[in-house]
Amino acid sequence: SLFSRNMDQRDEKKNQQCSSPVCVHNPHLDALKDDILYHFSLGTGSHNLQAMFGDVKFVCVGGSPWRMKSFIEFIAAELAMEDPKSEYPNICAGTDRYAMYKVGPVLSVSHGMGIPSIAIMLHELIKLLHHAHCTDVTIIRIGTSGGIGLEPGTVVITEQSVDATFLPKFEQVILGKTVVRNTDLDQSLAQELLHCSKELNQFETVIGNTMCTLDFYEGQARLDGAFCSYTEADKQEYLIKAKEAGVCNIEMESSVFAAMCKLSGLRATVVCVTLLDRLKGDQLSSSHEVLHSYQLRPQILLVSLKAAACIGGCW
Amino acid sequence: SLFSRNMDQRDEKKNQQCSSPVCVHNPHLDALKDDILYHFSLGTGSHNLQAMFGDVKFVCVGGSPWRMKSFIEFIAAELAMEDPKSEYPNICAGTDRYAMYKVGPVLSVSHGMGIPSIAIMLHELIKLLHHAHCTDVTIIRIGTSGGIGLEPGTVVITEQSVDATFLPKFEQVILGKTVVRNTDLDQSLAQELLHCSKELNQFETVIGNTMCTLDFYEGQARLDGAFCSYTEADKQEYLIKAKEAGVCNIEMESSVFAAMCKLSGLRATVVCVTLLDRLKGDQLSSSHEVLHSYQLRPQILLVSLKAAACIGGCW
Repeated sequence: SLFSRNMDQRDEKKNQQCSSPVCVHNPHLDALKDDILYHFSLGTGSHNLQAMFGDVKFVCVGGSPWRMKSFIEFIAAELAMEDPKSEYPNICAGTDRYAMYKVGPVLSVSHGMGIPSIAIMLHELIKLLHHAHCTDVTIIRIGTSGGIGLEPGTVVITEQSVDATFLPKFEQVILGKTVVRNTDLDQSLAQELLHCSKELNQFETVIGNTMCTLDFYEGQARLDGAFCSYTEADKQEYLIKAKEAGVCNIEMESSVFAAMCKLSGLRATVVCVTLLDRLKGDQLSSSHEVLHSYQLRPQILLVSLKAAACIGGCW
Repeated sequence: SLFSRNMDQRDEKKNQQCSSPVCVHNPHLDALKDDILYHFSLGTGSHNLQAMFGDVKFVCVGGSPWRMKSFIEFIAAELAMEDPKSEYPNICAGTDRYAMYKVGPVLSVSHGMGIPSIAIMLHELIKLLHHAHCTDVTIIRIGTSGGIGLEPGTVVITEQSVDATFLPKFEQVILGKTVVRNTDLDQSLAQELLHCSKELNQFETVIGNTMCTLDFYEGQARLDGAFCSYTEADKQEYLIKAKEAGVCNIEMESSVFAAMCKLSGLRATVVCVTLLDRLKGDQLSSSHEVLHSYQLRPQILLVSLKAAACIGGCW
């Protein structure tokens, strides 16, 4: 197709200009004869990772394995990169921890829910991309979130990922000691996505801070968990404070995603749709069809970025 | 069968003696007309939870959906509770977040990896058991873990779940403030399981502390993640300190599991097999068959507890 051919030429040109590797920061890895990526059921001894993944330029990650499968089918069809009737097998079929799909330079990987789950996946993904000698990789998390003061269905591109006290940092415990990591994301990529959304003109998109929590119920001030020791007024006060700190939405993976992608030199951003306005409620009571249509929006935006890349040259 | 009939009689007798409900601590729940258990794709408005789950006495949870399906097939066959050729449909088929299976009074639920993932599941499970008016429920997490100074394949029953500084507590952030919760587990249930294992005499089982971390690589002092800023000596020093604090194994869910089960009055314990000795390595390099056989051990122990319950009356 015209799209994929243009894109390949662009990628080649870009690779000649500069080439940014995917960095690991671990001197011990060189001593490993075989690096087993256990939760992917892949490894350097059992798989030729460079042959399988060496052409990857764009990685899309999200919580749900079903959504990541539908994303690869969607982007393949939309960009006419392959016969739309092709089947895309799960590359991690040997495990049920994560699911992984690939079409051309696009890799789609599920990460489950929460910081620990996405962190395991990212450790192994970064090693995979490193072993495969990938260069100039862009990675985008597409997800769902609760919005604060936004119409449900609004897409939020993350400016900064902040913690439950609204600070832009990720705390990681190493050898029992807390290490603080930076949660910066790629601002030019965020701006490109916002521009794409304006061109697309199908749904509202904003850039704002995303609060990343370790819990969905009490950790996000919901009133509908098994336990709740605060009032509706306490909840509103907390969410209004978050809004005043620039928080547009709340999810559970962005902080460690930002921190690990920054450490490994990946160009990264987070694009989440808001499924409800948390100032107005806690339960996801919209119909299945409405929630499904919302969940497609980050995917639609990514496809439009991918199309724009043929002109803009971002990837 | 003799087993299931004896068990039913025992359950009935126990219910007459005393009846312990599954507690929620949330005054807001009463005001909900319909409580949507979003991540299970179940709800009080759409499902008759009491008819579906009212007889549940025993809940088994574990990370992997495949393992939780094989557990329900295994326990049904072993205890002859139903035609072993029966199919057990996934009760949460409307979502890919968790999988849930049931046979007789036994419920089997997957929880993904890490504290946030199991916490979402437990909030909705506790509400489900509460809405279903279940009483005298025992819950056991069966999982995999890294051992410290134990032969791979050893089963560890958790005495206390401790954090990365070896303290028996779980920190939960609510409205931006840290709340500390107790991680006590049911010691009589742990002793019963240890006794069952001795009777069974098929594999080594110990009772000891379990360290619960937020990360699998740096958080557990592994040398094989994408990032590692410490030496082999640092790692050994940390793990030896853990061992001196009574830590037998390391996993990623026990602390919030203990805290939430205690709050809701569930009789709870954690039974994890060790897949490797972390003092000797980091990678899971045993064969698929060996690792699979290890993962069956907590299931075998639970079945022997269930059989013993016909005599001992624990559930």
